[in-house]
Order: sequence, then C-alpha cells, then structure tokens
Amino acid sequence: MKPERERTDEPLLLTPGPLTTSRATREAMLRDWGSRDEAFLALSERVRKRLLEIAGAGQEHACVLLQGSGTFALEAAVGTLVPRDGKLLILANGTYGRRMARICERLGRPFALHETPEEQPLDPAAVAGRLDADATAGHVAVVHCETTSGVANPLEAIATAVARSGRRLIVDAMSSFGALPLSASETPCEAIVASANKCLEGVPGVAFVIARQEALRASEGNAASLALDLHDQWSALEANGQWRFTPPTHVMAALDHALAEHAAEGGVAGRGARYAASCRRLVGGMRKLGFETLLPDAWQAPIIVTFHAPEDPRFAFGAFYQGMRRRGFVIYPGKLTRAPSFRIGVIGHLDEHDVARALEAVAEVVAELGLERCGRAPEGAP
Amino acid sequence: MKPERERTDEPLLLTPGPLTTSRATREAMLRDWGSRDEAFLALSERVRKRLLEIAGAGQEHACVLLQGSGTFALEAAVGTLVPRDGKLLILANGTYGRRMARICERLGRPFALHETPEEQPLDPAAVAGRLDADATAGHVAVVHCETTSGVANPLEAIATAVARSGRRLIVDAMSSFGALPLSASETPCEAIVASANKCLEGVPGVAFVIARQEALRASEGNAASLALDLHDQWSALEANGQWRFTPPTHVMAALDHALAEHAAEGGVAGRGARYAASCRRLVGGMRKLGFETLLPDAWQAPIIVTFHAPEDPRFAFGAFYQGMRRRGFVIYPGKLTRAPSFRIGVIGHLDEHDVARALEAVAEVVAELGLERCGRAPEGAP
Repeated sequence: MKPERERTDEPLLLTPGPLTTSRATREAMLRDWGSRDEAFLALSERVRKRLLEIAGAGQEHACVLLQGSGTFALEAAVGTLVPRDGKLLILANGTYGRRMARICERLGRPFALHETPEEQPLDPAAVAGRLDADATAGHVAVVHCETTSGVANPLEAIATAVARSGRRLIVDAMSSFGALPLSASETPCEAIVASANKCLEGVPGVAFVIARQEALRASEGNAASLALDLHDQWSALEANGQWRFTPPTHVMAALDHALAEHAAEGGVAGRGARYAASCRRLVGGMRKLGFETLLPDAWQAPIIVTFHAPEDPRFAFGAFYQGMRRRGFVIYPGKLTRAPSFRIGVIGHLDEHDVARALEAVAEVVAELGLERCGRAPEGAP
Repeated sequence: MKPERERTDEPLLLTPGPLTTSRATREAMLRDWGSRDEAFLALSERVRKRLLEIAGAGQEHACVLLQGSGTFALEAAVGTLVPRDGKLLILANGTYGRRMARICERLGRPFALHETPEEQPLDPAAVAGRLDADATAGHVAVVHCETTSGVANPLEAIATAVARSGRRLIVDAMSSFGALPLSASETPCEAIVASANKCLEGVPGVAFVIARQEALRASEGNAASLALDLHDQWSALEANGQWRFTPPTHVMAALDHALAEHAAEGGVAGRGARYAASCRRLVGGMRKLGFETLLPDAWQAPIIVTFHAPEDPRFAFGAFYQGMRRRGFVIYPGKLTRAPSFRIGVIGHLDEHDVARALEAVAEVVAELGLERCGRAPEGAP
C-alpha cells in the first residue's frame, strides 16, 4: 500500500511516535460516540479482537484496553501482574528498560536491573545466566525493540530462556507491535504491552495489554491504583464490554480504522515489509552522504535508526533539526547516554519514496550547514 | 452561539460526556503533530494558559495536563497532593464522591467518608461540624456538580468552611468546569480537577489539575506511581513545555479549538447561560409530559437532570432508551442507589432547540410505549 501524500503544510513525522497517520484514520475521528452506546461497545470489542489476532493470541488470552500513553499501560501491567511482594527482573539496554525500573521504584515493587550496553542487543545466554543466579525474581520484563538505539532484542530466545527457568515474561512491545513478528501463542509470555500510535498507525491516547487470562484472574487485588488496575479494567470489559472510566472514543475510532488499514496491507508481514524497505533506503542513503549508523544492519529493527552525530564541528542538532523541519520533516534527537547522535524513524503512514524525499532534504541541509565530514566523531570529542 | 446542526445519522448525546462536540472541534484532529515539535508545545502551552484563565487562577497557580480520563487526574491529584501519611476527608453525596474513597482505598491513603443523601446538596454547616469533630484530616475532597443526581453542591460555602478550619480542599469540578462559576483566586482551594470532554466540549482523552504551585512544590515524592505523578508531570511541563510521556496530540488539538469556541461564546457566563436555557426547556417540557424531576429547581445544576422512572408499569428503561436512540438521541441510565430513575444531559454542542426536538421524541416514545402515568412511582414500587 503506497501512502497517498497530501499537499499540506504538515511536516512528515520521522519519529518513534506520535507519527504520521493516514487521512482516513484521522477522518474516523469526525463523529462523536456515546461511550456506553452499543455502537461504541461494538467498536471497542472489534478492536480488542483484532489486537488479539495481530498478537497471534489464542483463547487463553485477553486484550485489555487502557486510556493514556504506553507508559500508563506498562505501569498497569507491572503493578497488576506482579504480586505486591513479587520481584521483577528487568532486562535493560536503553531508556525504556530503565523506565520500568523507575516504575518499580515508584510502586515500591522489588526489582533487579540486568543492564547491558545500549549499542548491543540483549544476550540470551547472559540472560539465562542471570536467571540462574537470581532465584527470587518471579517475573522478567524486556523491551522488544529499544528505540533508544533502534535495536531489535532477540525476543524468542529470551522468552525461551525465561520460560525454561519457570519465570513469567512481560514484553514491552510498544514500538514493534504490528510490524515485527510476535506470536503470543508460540512465544511463552505472560503479557505484551503496546499502544495505538506506533506501528499500528493510530493516534495517541490509548494503549493495551494482551495477557493470559489465567494471569489476569490471579492478579485481583495486586494493583495499588484504581485507574491503572488492569484486573478491574479487564473484568469490566469482559462483563458487559464497558470501560470503567470514560474511554477516548475518537482515538478508539481512529484505531479501529487504522486496524482495518493494517489488515488491508497484509497484517504484520505487509507492514513489516514496508518499514523494512524504508529502513534499507534510509540507511543506504544516509551512508552515501557519509553518515554512520550506530548499529550494524543485523541488529537494526526497521523502526527507527540512530546515526552518530557527524564529526564536523559545524554540526549542531538544533540547526540540523530546523533545516529538516523547514523542508517538511520532523526528526528526533538522540537518546544514547554515551555518544552524541540523532534518530530518524521509518514507521507511520510513509514509505521509501517519502524516505527518498527526506534524504534529499538531508543532503540540502548538509550543504546549507557546510558539513564536510558526516562520519562519526572520534571517541571523547565534544 | 447557536450550534449548527449537521444532517448525519449520528445521534445527539444527551449524556454527562463524552458528549456532542462541534464539527470544527473534531476537524481540529485532522492533522498530525510531532509531540516534541515546537508547534505542539505552543499549542499545549496555550491550552494550559487558557484553562488557568477559565479557572480564574492567578500567578500562584499552575495547570497540569494529564493523559487519560478525569478519574486518572483525580487519582493523580489525591495520590500526589495528599502526603502518604495524610488523611483525606471525602464529602460524598453520590457516586463520584464515593469513587474518591475507592481511590484512597487502593492507594492505601487514610480517609474518612462524610456521606449524605444523594438527592440533597451537601450542607456546609454539617461539613463545618464534621471538620471540627475530625482533627486528623489535613485535606478535604468535594464534588462540585454530582452527576449521580445532577445536584450543584454549594462550593463557595464549603470552601470557606474548609479554609476556616485550616484544611486544604481538592475540588472535583469534572462536570462543572467551564459552565458554572468558579474562581481559584477567590475560592480557597488547593486543587481543581476537570477534563476536556464535559462543559469545555472537547473530546475525551485528556484531563487536568489546576493547583497552587506551592502545593505542587511540596508534593515531591508523594506519588506511588510514575504515570500519575502530578509533581513530575508539572516539573516537566514547566521545565521545557514537554510532556513526560506521549501526549494525546489530536485530543489536545481538539481541546485547543474547543477552548477558542468557549471564549467566543463569552466564556463561563456564555456557556452557563446556554446550558441553563436548555435545562429550563428540558425540565419544563418533561414536566408537561408528566415526568417528575428528582431535585427541586433550586438544587439543580444545568448539566444533567435526573427524572424519576414513571410509575406506569409499562415503562422499562431499555425500551425507552431504544425509542430515543432510534429518533437520534442518546440518553443515560440512572445511577441513584435508592429510586429507579433515568438522566438526560444538556451539556455539549447543543441548545434549547435541540432539547425541544428531544422533547418531541420523548412524547413519541411515551405514546409508543403506551405510558399513561409518567409521574414518580410510589415508594417501594418495583
């Protein structure tokens, strides 16, 4: 599916989300819905069912929708599924892994952090070793695609190691859900957390958790929150399809439409193929201009790419951003703790032709700023 | 401002929200926004400023936006502003008051419930007495307009009593904000909590707390939640205008437009006048048809009206609802714990002419169901 490109003054969002959506997805927000009316309840139920299908989930799973951003759903999953005295082992190679540690700190849940370098995927063997060494953690959390660097973590191997050790896995699939293969039935895990406005190409305002019903049933009373109690939210949705508190009706209507577009594109395979083509075009084009990627291609998820900041001292991210912005593209700052970098995303309603236009803009900005050396700055440079 | 009425198959929402919004407010959602781009940060800042103006807030206040429904912001306010060992006295004459008790239970915060009948406003003298008798509660919570019954609680008098006793007041102004007068500078209170999709006529998905900055400063470390930490959210917004986690960008754009319409209508006075006219028309028309309101007019807020279920045994809410739904109107079930009832709202992008059409529909449904006695069923009737 080639995204039609509107002629507007809106920039194209080359970010990890919120991202560029289709006109039709936004137009789905042009009507109002009574949140307890059967028309909306049917929409809500359709979305839950479709999300389960995309997750490759079976009868033993349920989809729990939640108001707010992805972090709200992550906190709800950790706070509800991990018992109050349970311990969570967090596998972290970036900001989003560390954010789960912050969540545990706030909730007062015991946790341990298995932290490894940001520029590498997690190592399943090291994870297995850590699991052997740490007998007290009943749950493990992992980020599927860590957008801090753009790395795809080896989810299958990690899930297998976690299952072998008899622990329960919570997957933060925020930036991969809908584009990278993932099967809740085949990948042993307790819960998958994601949101509407990443690879599903909906608008922000709703997130969800796909969890084993057995885990949800066992979680009653765990949450020290009313709003973020996943068990209560699930019970209400199951009982009569109703949300406990006002749902973001328009955002849900956009997601409903976005899911239809996802299916029309061929589901996860189709969407993943489009993103992969965009990613190849981006990486190839940027390398031709002299930029260096943080990651080797084998570790790169087709979601967002981290580039080293150029060694040329005339490079400044602010000026580079503004140059791209004036040409109609929003890019993203780097988030690495060690090296200066910036990021360009390839998810959202855009394809490799849009990426080609973005590459032209990059070339123009490089010329405008007078950059001569776009390669990586040597270690220790400012 | 007379709402233009579109010819569509969408029902008019006569509910306490989500409610009918203007076409222009929904059209504001037709573009995408980079959540960290300056265009969105400017929008976000404009919304915060305008909400402070509507609240009659001064330099000493701040507006903290939060993802999710109103309950999310209420839980954030209670969980952040009340110290972990602080006690909250909750004044409750309906579901929303009792919901704050459920929030405290979950958070593990000490609380006391001052519960009075649903069909009466809170009594400031009784509140003052309760405050004298309970020296341990440092904070008090009250619902301004309790949509369980539709009653307007006497906020000024309660706030004065709370201030006199040296306690701090948290106001749930969810269903009154923007239509009933309220001045944060003149009404002594610590925080006012409301959401986008009630009298402000935005779409659901974002809520906010207007709080004294001194209270926010003192609240650091109170919240046992990352997502619902009002102090952190405020600090981030103040530091650089950024939300900590993905904001509902489209919902915010709708709110931005809805606030412009609110100003164009003459602010709180203009909006309140339109709702009051609709409410008078509704109550008068329903009484002509034989229905009885729960409340005397003096206690009725111009937000949502509770009617006693008719004594005629042929009345069933489901059939009544469907009859109205087929005619293009969504009404609301009752929520009283004692008497069977139903509710009709007058907030949203509609006026007394729409109410007149709704009254015609009620008359038709009354005839269709063959209802002869629409007055209140005697006590103890099924």
